Amino acid sequence: MKKIKIGIVGGTGYTGVELLRLLARHPHAVIQVITSRGEAGLPVADMFPSLRGVVDLLFSDPAQVDLTQCDVVFFATPHGVAMQQAPSLVAAGVKVIDLAADFRLQDTQVFEHWYKLAHACPDLLQQAVYGLPELYAQHIVDAQVIGNPGCYPTTVLLGLAPLLEQDWLDLSVPIIADAKSGVSGAGRKAEVATLFAEASDNLRAYGVAGHRHQPEILAQLRQLSGHPEIQLIFVPHLIPMIRGMLTTLHVKLNAQGQAQQLQSVYQARYQASPFVDVMPAGALPDTRSVRGSNQLRIAITPQQDGYVTIVVVQDNLVKGASGQAIQNMNLMFDLPADAGLQVLPLLP
Amino acid sequence: MKKIKIGIVGGTGYTGVELLRLLARHPHAVIQVITSRGEAGLPVADMFPSLRGVVDLLFSDPAQVDLTQCDVVFFATPHGVAMQQAPSLVAAGVKVIDLAADFRLQDTQVFEHWYKLAHACPDLLQQAVYGLPELYAQHIVDAQVIGNPGCYPTTVLLGLAPLLEQDWLDLSVPIIADAKSGVSGAGRKAEVATLFAEASDNLRAYGVAGHRHQPEILAQLRQLSGHPEIQLIFVPHLIPMIRGMLTTLHVKLNAQGQAQQLQSVYQARYQASPFVDVMPAGALPDTRSVRGSNQLRIAITPQQDGYVTIVVVQDNLVKGASGQAIQNMNLMFDLPADAGLQVLPLLP
Amino acid sequence: MKKIKIGIVGGTGYTGVELLRLLARHPHAVIQVITSRGEAGLPVADMFPSLRGVVDLLFSDPAQVDLTQCDVVFFATPHGVAMQQAPSLVAAGVKVIDLAADFRLQDTQVFEHWYKLAHACPDLLQQAVYGLPELYAQHIVDAQVIGNPGCYPTTVLLGLAPLLEQDWLDLSVPIIADAKSGVSGAGRKAEVATLFAEASDNLRAYGVAGHRHQPEILAQLRQLSGHPEIQLIFVPHLIPMIRGMLTTLHVKLNAQGQAQQLQSVYQARYQASPFVDVMPAGALPDTRSVRGSNQLRIAITPQQDGYVTIVVVQDNLVKGASGQAIQNMNLMFDLPADAGLQVLPLLP
Amino acid sequence: MKKIKIGIVGGTGYTGVELLRLLARHPHAVIQVITSRGEAGLPVADMFPSLRGVVDLLFSDPAQVDLTQCDVVFFATPHGVAMQQAPSLVAAGVKVIDLAADFRLQDTQVFEHWYKLAHACPDLLQQAVYGLPELYAQHIVDAQVIGNPGCYPTTVLLGLAPLLEQDWLDLSVPIIADAKSGVSGAGRKAEVATLFAEASDNLRAYGVAGHRHQPEILAQLRQLSGHPEIQLIFVPHLIPMIRGMLTTLHVKLNAQGQAQQLQSVYQARYQASPFVDVMPAGALPDTRSVRGSNQLRIAITPQQDGYVTIVVVQDNLVKGASGQAIQNMNLMFDLPADAGLQVLPLLP
Repeated sequence: MKKIKIGIVGGTGYTGVELLRLLARHPHAVIQVITSRGEAGLPVADMFPSLRGVVDLLFSDPAQVDLTQCDVVFFATPHGVAMQQAPSLVAAGVKVIDLAADFRLQDTQVFEHWYKLAHACPDLLQQAVYGLPELYAQHIVDAQVIGNPGCYPTTVLLGLAPLLEQDWLDLSVPIIADAKSGVSGAGRKAEVATLFAEASDNLRAYGVAGHRHQPEILAQLRQLSGHPEIQLIFVPHLIPMIRGMLTTLHVKLNAQGQAQQLQSVYQARYQASPFVDVMPAGALPDTRSVRGSNQLRIAITPQQDGYVTIVVVQDNLVKGASGQAIQNMNLMFDLPADAGLQVLPLLP
Repeated sequence: MKKIKIGIVGGTGYTGVELLRLLARHPHAVIQVITSRGEAGLPVADMFPSLRGVVDLLFSDPAQVDLTQCDVVFFATPHGVAMQQAPSLVAAGVKVIDLAADFRLQDTQVFEHWYKLAHACPDLLQQAVYGLPELYAQHIVDAQVIGNPGCYPTTVLLGLAPLLEQDWLDLSVPIIADAKSGVSGAGRKAEVATLFAEASDNLRAYGVAGHRHQPEILAQLRQLSGHPEIQLIFVPHLIPMIRGMLTTLHVKLNAQGQAQQLQSVYQARYQASPFVDVMPAGALPDTRSVRGSNQLRIAITPQQDGYVTIVVVQDNLVKGASGQAIQNMNLMFDLPADAGLQVLPLLP
Repeated sequence: MKKIKIGIVGGTGYTGVELLRLLARHPHAVIQVITSRGEAGLPVADMFPSLRGVVDLLFSDPAQVDLTQCDVVFFATPHGVAMQQAPSLVAAGVKVIDLAADFRLQDTQVFEHWYKLAHACPDLLQQAVYGLPELYAQHIVDAQVIGNPGCYPTTVLLGLAPLLEQDWLDLSVPIIADAKSGVSGAGRKAEVATLFAEASDNLRAYGVAGHRHQPEILAQLRQLSGHPEIQLIFVPHLIPMIRGMLTTLHVKLNAQGQAQQLQSVYQARYQASPFVDVMPAGALPDTRSVRGSNQLRIAITPQQDGYVTIVVVQDNLVKGASGQAIQNMNLMFDLPADAGLQVLPLLP
Repeated sequence: MKKIKIGIVGGTGYTGVELLRLLARHPHAVIQVITSRGEAGLPVADMFPSLRGVVDLLFSDPAQVDLTQCDVVFFATPHGVAMQQAPSLVAAGVKVIDLAADFRLQDTQVFEHWYKLAHACPDLLQQAVYGLPELYAQHIVDAQVIGNPGCYPTTVLLGLAPLLEQDWLDLSVPIIADAKSGVSGAGRKAEVATLFAEASDNLRAYGVAGHRHQPEILAQLRQLSGHPEIQLIFVPHLIPMIRGMLTTLHVKLNAQGQAQQLQSVYQARYQASPFVDVMPAGALPDTRSVRGSNQLRIAITPQQDGYVTIVVVQDNLVKGASGQAIQNMNLMFDLPADAGLQVLPLLP
């Protein structure tokens, strides 16, 4: 089989190195080019010695490469880059998967409010597909442009989809998403707040009054539920671990929902999804059980009065970012779902 | 001033060593005796080298010491020990502060259900005072026996007291306490689940279907609010840090509550409380800002539809245990509130 | 190709779960049976949820299984177990790879001194091969029994082999091996000293006056150098990280050694070794650059007066244990060197 | 007693906040002013919430304050700042304690080589005293300017002083200092290499080919020993912990040294030093046993052939920086040695 030719724009962050780790062992893909404005000319393995002997590429100057030779281009860049380059790539028949937010929010006003950028290609945005394969596989298959979901949204949406799709939530109370992320979620940026000596042996909530993933989740909740009035309280926390995300969802079921056997409902909903694992009743997942893998695990615990606690874990850099991007690519190119994603979690 | 003579029963755990650290520098107290069944004869500083040159005591065999020579005895023991020894101590005029659960729950049936122990002295229990100084100082002053609160309950109760006391919560929705604790909360016990290689770089919820602090919190919520029907969903999480506890409270205000300026309400309520700090509007506390100190910090963030997010942080071993016990002792012996508790947080 | 049938004795520790992680994806092997005295009947994935959906085996009662149906049996047991069972397995034509110390030390007196056990099969021990593939591949190919090296010895021996083989060390000064290990090296045993709250944010030397790996290293140094008088000072340290080992070697070269271009010497020596990577001059490896992989990296820094500092890193559970065991298996069964060992390091 | 008036220049780093933590509780000192070019006008407690309610100062613009009103000024600044301001302060009768390197190296050529700065006041440098109280108390008492030692040098020099002072080392082999530091040693600077996601669960050596503390240590070793030919191999490592430093010293004794009972020698040498603790024979110190305190602990382990392993631990920010600076101040102002330094280590 002919290998898919891959381009990566902006490969010096954590989602970039994670794409490299997974794609370097992908049986049906070959990385053609990886760009970095700041590091052009540097061997990738000099920056990421974990890839010594495996990845022989140098970072290329983005101004000097022709990405139209690629079959697909991943943008592992800051918000606002992909939307500048996607139109010409798509015009040249190249598929685009953006790991930033440029193609996640269909409402450009919301996008502009939260990201302080005017959208560069609202037409293309309309065709873009939200790349959550367990929900939108049919659309992803034919997509030219994928907005790869944020890490937090992935946990909330997959944790609630079985209930939203069946209209089993009591929407008179808000969904509460008490979310916890490892520090790599903040990216590979030199900042005091995420220094080891600041973030280690420490815990804090942040963005309580407003986080960019809140509107993204809300837009999807509305779409999935068909209820524009659905409410969400989203509180993220920074956890002293490198990778891993755990979201605790507190929701109330409506009468119909309360009549269900949720454990079976969830197991049935995700039976055909290789990357979503519903834990047995009574078992709670820990984040290390998915560390380094594309797996996401869900546990459902009924509470009093129709409330339910749903715990979702994933590796924020894999299922929450680069692994999910490759999962999308596999769908777009009709490859086996788990191609390049068979890597097992690292425990301990 | 004559120094208060102190006994510590069971000094080999984390609350024990924390009592030692704080009491060794207390200006009005002197540790007379510290017992340990397993370590009798061992110098305390051999087990805890941090105390070399400061604490010269040996652990004593509990069977060989006369604790009635003490003015106050702290029990830093497993649940069930203090209730065996408290009656004779109280009869001898010795005050008792139990850091375990023996004197926290007035309902002995609830106690027996959760701790699998028949209560040994229900009469004495009735006189025992729940040792949360910011709420019950007047009773603590005259108490013979203190049930020192659990770490989680301290955060929930101080986080909600200003609202409960004024009856400002909408009790048609449950209080959600999404709580996060450092690993020292599990104690100094040899267990696989809290090994470094298990608990580090990892995150999990636990006890979702039932945790011993749930009934303790609920009993206090009922008392404080005067509403027996008040509901609580309590979900604790284990965080890869040594010390520190952060509880995120999600509550709904009733109409009266929604009319308040909560920031001022909280500041006024805790103005006279040296160990409770209400953060300025918009600022969120991190756990390291209280590490090693008896401080507890609270931040209030209004959400839509009358919901409020309240974040509370403390050091689980200090304000959540040994520091609070000393705060109670200071009240009981008419000492300055901050005697022995002036130690500042260690940051970074 | 027919798959190799594998048995694992004692699969509940960290080397056990690491064998499972790697062998579950090995293209030429299939795990037939895994035993545990304490956990017989339990699904492996209940203990190690990272393997849910991948490993379907239950732990078997060692008394109830016939290991002679296997082609090779790995012992991931405490010291002293393999030597009891190896003779009958070898007699039945089954190859044995012991990850404990039973077959590492040819001198049974030394073994008995350090492990407080009489050796159960000194005859078989004589045929056993020390399983360090980069040094002894020719013997491993035909071995019936492999003593898989200790983690510390692997770093010291591969770090020094190029010098020892050429007799380039000045043996009038001792080799100093200042070694640092992550906490998983202590195993998955319930012990206070390796609790998160004890080992995190902390650092200590241990075993300075004597560590079991000292005689193992020394025996190999003598063999490799041909100099029985060679001296070693070995000081291990416990580092607050899960995995990873870094050994800093301080040695003096003799006149001949000082005349060499060590960087080229090392590169040439390990050119054909896929799992040993000599860093470019001036670059120092970090442990995360090998996390989860079978890679070992070496950096050489010349110092004044003929001294050299050699830094060696590996993942203690992979190249230092289970990965190396599989590397040995691949040699013994004439499989590609990297079969099952292509997993890339997890960074960050 | 009249309180000493203190100025702090550059208070936004870790040594700055550590000075604040300790001085805020110093019974004989009062912080008059703290400057920061970048943060002028900001309340100190906004940057360091651990000091809320304790430190009420704002950061001052250094251009706007008159430091000559202070009795002593601490420089917690980058290298090169103190030497610009010290002359005018000294002329005004203000004592200066520099926590950076400006007054540590008497040889200005060495200073200029390592710090790439011409020395601004070589005359004043000549009068400056190296502020290691256990070695130079007599000079510190009368000093106008103190060069506060580096963290690594403190461990090496106090670990070796008893041997150097008696000329008991065999100088034909170099001193090997294999040193390990927590990440706070790198300071509170936004840098990728010390991000949590980079430095956590990781270990590396650095500066093997040359570190600025090497010439500082060497100069002091020469002075203490009287042997200009003394040799040092210094290899620092970065440990994933916030605070703490452990240096493992590998040295050889000469014949006279080998005749000594080192345990007694060390105990006698440091008997009068309240901040140096010689561990009992056979006991090894961990870094947490000094966390947050000014204590330094030493353990001596004899090896074969006259070699000795000496392990030294300290908190790099306290005895390795700010605590030692206050210890110097206490000497300079004839205060009790432990004034402000009685804070006990935080364990766990």
